[in-house]
Amino acid sequence: MPPNRPAYLLSALLLAAAAAAVGARRHASPAANATFAGEPVYLWPLPKSVSSGSRTLTVDPDLALDPQGLGGRSPAVAEAFQRYRGLVFAPWAHAARAGRARYDVTRLTVVVASANDTLALGVDESYAIYVAAAGGVDSIVGGAIIEANTIYGAIRGLETFSQLCVFNYDTKNVEVHNAPWHIQDEPRFAFRGLLLDTSRHYLPVDVIKQVIDSMSFAKLVPTYPNLWKGSYSKWERYTVEDAHDIVNYAKKRGINVMAEIDVPGHAESWGNGYPKLWPSPICTEPLDVSSDFTFEVIFGILSDMRKIFPFGLFHLGGDEVYTGCWNTTPHVRQWMDERKMTTKDAYKYFVLKAQELAIKLNWTPVNWEETFNSFEENLNPLTVVHNWLGPGVCPKVVAKGFRCIMSNQGVWYLDHLDVPWEDVYSGEPLAGISDREQQKLVLGGEVCMWGETADTSDVLQTIWPRAAAAAERLWSQLEAISAQDVETTVLSRLHRFRCLLNHRGVAAAPVTNYYARRPPVGPGSCFVQ
Amino acid sequence: MPPNRPAYLLSALLLAAAAAAVGARRHASPAANATFAGEPVYLWPLPKSVSSGSRTLTVDPDLALDPQGLGGRSPAVAEAFQRYRGLVFAPWAHAARAGRARYDVTRLTVVVASANDTLALGVDESYAIYVAAAGGVDSIVGGAIIEANTIYGAIRGLETFSQLCVFNYDTKNVEVHNAPWHIQDEPRFAFRGLLLDTSRHYLPVDVIKQVIDSMSFAKLVPTYPNLWKGSYSKWERYTVEDAHDIVNYAKKRGINVMAEIDVPGHAESWGNGYPKLWPSPICTEPLDVSSDFTFEVIFGILSDMRKIFPFGLFHLGGDEVYTGCWNTTPHVRQWMDERKMTTKDAYKYFVLKAQELAIKLNWTPVNWEETFNSFEENLNPLTVVHNWLGPGVCPKVVAKGFRCIMSNQGVWYLDHLDVPWEDVYSGEPLAGISDREQQKLVLGGEVCMWGETADTSDVLQTIWPRAAAAAERLWSQLEAISAQDVETTVLSRLHRFRCLLNHRGVAAAPVTNYYARRPPVGPGSCFVQ
Repeated sequence: MPPNRPAYLLSALLLAAAAAAVGARRHASPAANATFAGEPVYLWPLPKSVSSGSRTLTVDPDLALDPQGLGGRSPAVAEAFQRYRGLVFAPWAHAARAGRARYDVTRLTVVVASANDTLALGVDESYAIYVAAAGGVDSIVGGAIIEANTIYGAIRGLETFSQLCVFNYDTKNVEVHNAPWHIQDEPRFAFRGLLLDTSRHYLPVDVIKQVIDSMSFAKLVPTYPNLWKGSYSKWERYTVEDAHDIVNYAKKRGINVMAEIDVPGHAESWGNGYPKLWPSPICTEPLDVSSDFTFEVIFGILSDMRKIFPFGLFHLGGDEVYTGCWNTTPHVRQWMDERKMTTKDAYKYFVLKAQELAIKLNWTPVNWEETFNSFEENLNPLTVVHNWLGPGVCPKVVAKGFRCIMSNQGVWYLDHLDVPWEDVYSGEPLAGISDREQQKLVLGGEVCMWGETADTSDVLQTIWPRAAAAAERLWSQLEAISAQDVETTVLSRLHRFRCLLNHRGVAAAPVTNYYARRPPVGPGSCFVQ
Repeated sequence: MPPNRPAYLLSALLLAAAAAAVGARRHASPAANATFAGEPVYLWPLPKSVSSGSRTLTVDPDLALDPQGLGGRSPAVAEAFQRYRGLVFAPWAHAARAGRARYDVTRLTVVVASANDTLALGVDESYAIYVAAAGGVDSIVGGAIIEANTIYGAIRGLETFSQLCVFNYDTKNVEVHNAPWHIQDEPRFAFRGLLLDTSRHYLPVDVIKQVIDSMSFAKLVPTYPNLWKGSYSKWERYTVEDAHDIVNYAKKRGINVMAEIDVPGHAESWGNGYPKLWPSPICTEPLDVSSDFTFEVIFGILSDMRKIFPFGLFHLGGDEVYTGCWNTTPHVRQWMDERKMTTKDAYKYFVLKAQELAIKLNWTPVNWEETFNSFEENLNPLTVVHNWLGPGVCPKVVAKGFRCIMSNQGVWYLDHLDVPWEDVYSGEPLAGISDREQQKLVLGGEVCMWGETADTSDVLQTIWPRAAAAAERLWSQLEAISAQDVETTVLSRLHRFRCLLNHRGVAAAPVTNYYARRPPVGPGSCFVQ
C-alpha cells in the first residue's frame, strides 16, 4: 500500500483494536445494540460490536480488491473476494454499470496480518470492518476495509460485508445503508459444528459442497460426514479423492472437516467386507472386542484417514453400544472370562484402545458422552466429550477436567422436526457452568443432521434455517443474545437471513412453520414465512 | 476434420440417417427395446432408436471436443461441452489421470450442420450418437460422435452422452458400458413444458436457473415464470436485466422462456401500482373491462416484454374469470348495458382485445381452455388453447382447428401431491385423437408447478422426479413407452434418473413415496427409494 494513503493508519488502528478485543474476550463486553436508526441490524450472526450511521453508500459493480499485509495477497483471499462479489452482484451488474457513474465504494481493502493458512481449532477468526464514503463529512478517510489477523478472519469479514450490501430495485445499485459502519467481531466459541450424516443416506459430493457453502454464510465451522460408513450401492461411495476435494473445498471457506468412525457400536457394515470383524454371523454388532484383527483394521482405517483429514480432532463415536451378544458368543465370552471382564469392562477396553490408536496418529479423540458416563475415571485426559443425551452433561464433564462439545438432542438434533427455531436458539453451551476456567473447557457445540429421513431431496431445508439459530448462539456474545426480544428483533433478522439463503440458492425452509422443513402454508413473502 | 479420418464418412452417413428419421416422424417407428444384454438402457427419456453391444470403454478425463460442421464451432456448443464434461468427471479426475494411461474415448466429435442459433418452437432437436473404441473389432471406425442439424440437437445429444458415462469406483475411470452405441433420437412433441409459478412465492433468479438446469437434464423445453405478477416485498422482484439473464441462461440449454400475464382474472396486484385498473376499490378483480386505460397498460407491458422474450408464443391467461362485480360496479354495468353485453360478452371482449394486442406484437397467443370453452367460435384462429380442467379437451380443440397444449390437472399439476409418478407417466396428449392432421395440432404438454406451497425450500423436490415422467411421455416414442412394464423397467430407469439428478445436486425427491416431496421413510439407497 502506498505510504501516503491515510487508510493505512486507520488500518493499523483497527487491527490494534481488534487484537485488544481478542484479549478482552473473557471480560464482559457491552451487548451490541440490536437496532440503529430505528432499523434492525440485518446481520446474522450478530457481531460483537457494531456502530453505524445514517448515510447510504453505493458500491461499484467493479469493486476492486486491494490486498494488504502478509496474508492479504494469498490466493484464498482473492478467491473468497471473487466468490462474495459474485454473491453480492447480479451477473448483469457489470454490463449495466453506468459508464461514468461515481460510486462511493470502489475498492475493498483487505488487510491480513499473517500468511499462515493453517486451519486449526481456535484459529483467530476475528476481524474488523470499516465502511465509509471517501471524503465524507463523517469520516476522516473513506473506503471499505476489512482487517484480520488470518485469512479465516478475512473470510468471516467478507461474509459480514456481503450482508451489508443490499440491492436497490429502483436504482439497480448495490448499496450499503446506515454507513459509516464500524464492526469488530470474533466468535464466542471456536467449535461451531454441523454434523452431516452420510451413512443413512448417501449425499453426493456436490450436495455436501452446497451444505459447506451455506455453513460459511452462517459462520459455522466444523462438520463430520461419516464418509466411510456403509454403502448402499456401488454408486453411492466416496473415493479418497472425493474426500480430499471436500476437505479443500471446506478449507477455502474456513471450514474444517472432522471425520468419524463410530466404534464399536455403529460399524456393523464393515463386516460386509471383513466378516471376521463380527463376533459371529448372528452377532454382527458391536465389533469383535476379542480379536487383534479388529484393531488392526481400525488402525489401518485411521492411518488412511490421517492422510486426508488435517484437522486435529477425530471422532471415535462410542455411543449406543449394546454388548448383549458379546456375552452369548462363546469365544468372546471366553476372552472376557480369561480377563475377568464384564461386558462393561470390555466396552471400556475397546474405546480406550481405539483412543490410543488415534492419539498415536496425533489426533485428539472425541467420544460421545456414553464413554464419559460409563468410565470417566479411565478416559484419556485428552478426550473431548460430546454431549447428546440431554442437558447438564457438559457441567459434569468440565468439572472433571475434560473438554466438552454440546449437542443436547432436545435442542440441537435437527432431525427432531418438532423443535422450533426458538428452542434451537435457546441452547446454551455454558449453562450450569459458572467457573471461568471450566467455561474455557467447553469448545462449543454442534447441531446434528442425522440422516434417517434426510437425503439430497430435503437435507438443506432440514438444516436451514434452524442451524442458523445455533450458529448465532455459538458466534455472538451471550449478552447480545439475551438482551434481545427473540420474537421481534431476532425473528425479523432470522427471516431476513433465511431470505438471504434462498437468494443464494439454498433451500432454507420457512422460519415459523411448527414442524421443520414443512412447505409454506400459502402464498406469501419469504420475509414473513 | 482431416479428410483422411474415416469418421467423417460415418459422420455424413449418420447425419443422413437422422434426417431420414425426422422425415419419418409421422410414420410408426419400431419401439426401442428396453433392455440390452440383460441390463436396462439407463437413459431418460428413452431415445427413439438404440442399439448397443457388450464392450466397456474408458473415457479420457481430458476428453477433447472436436467441433465439426458450420454450427459445431459455435460458442454454445463449446460451452455445453464444458458443462457436460464438468457433470461427467469429478473435479479431481484430471489430476488423478494416470500419465500414460490409454483411454478408449479421447475425443468427442460434435458435428452440427447449421450455425443458426434461433430457438423457435419446433426447432430441430434430432441427433445421432455413435460411440465405439478406435480400431475395435466391432466397429469400422472409432470414437464418440454426436451429429445434429442444430446446436440444440447437439445439446440434447450431449445430455444423452453424459448419461452413457458411468463412474467406476474400482478403477476410478469414467466408462461407457455396452458399447458400441448407436442412438438416433428426436422428440415426439415440440412443446415439452414446465410451468414455474413465481407469483405465489418469489423464486430467486439462482433458483430459477437451478430449475432450468434440471429441465435440460430431462430434455424438457419451454417454461413460463410469471415474472411480473405481484411482489411481496421490495426485495422480491425481478428486474428487466434478471429476465434477460434468465432467457439467455435458458437458451444456452436449448430452453425457451414463455412469459404469461393472466388477464383479466389474475392481475389484481397490478392495481396496487395503478388503482384505475380496478373497477372500484371493492371490485379489484377482474380488471376494468370498460376502460381504455386497462388496454393501454396491457399493451405497454406486452411491448416491454416483447423486447425480452424472443419466443414466439405468449400466454395471456384468461382462466378463472369471475365477473360478478362487473355487474355491480355502476360504470362497468353502464358500459356493458350501452353495448348490450352480458358479463360473458365482456369477458370475451377482454380476451379477444388482449389477443389482438399480442398478435400486433407478432406473438402467437396462448389462452387457458376457459376461453375456448366459452366462445370458441370467436377465438382468434392463431390461438393455442391450453388445457387444464380435465381430460378430453384437446380432442375438441383440435377438431375445431385450434392448436392445443395438454396440462390436464388430474395428471400434470405437480402441486397435486397425491398424484404418483405412474399417473403422471400415463398422461397422453394424443388420447382421443386418431386423425393424423388433428394430432399435428397438439403441440405437446406442460407440467404445472403452481406455487401456493412451493418456494425456494421445496420447489425442486416438488418438480422432481415426477416432471421426468412427463418429460419421457413427451419426448419418447409412444410405442416404446407402451411396450414397457411400468413397474419394472421404467421404474428402475426412473430411480436411476432420480439418483442422477441428486448426483448433480438437484433435490429430486424419492420416487415411490405415495405423496410427492415427502422425505425418505428410512435409511437406504436412492436407487430404491
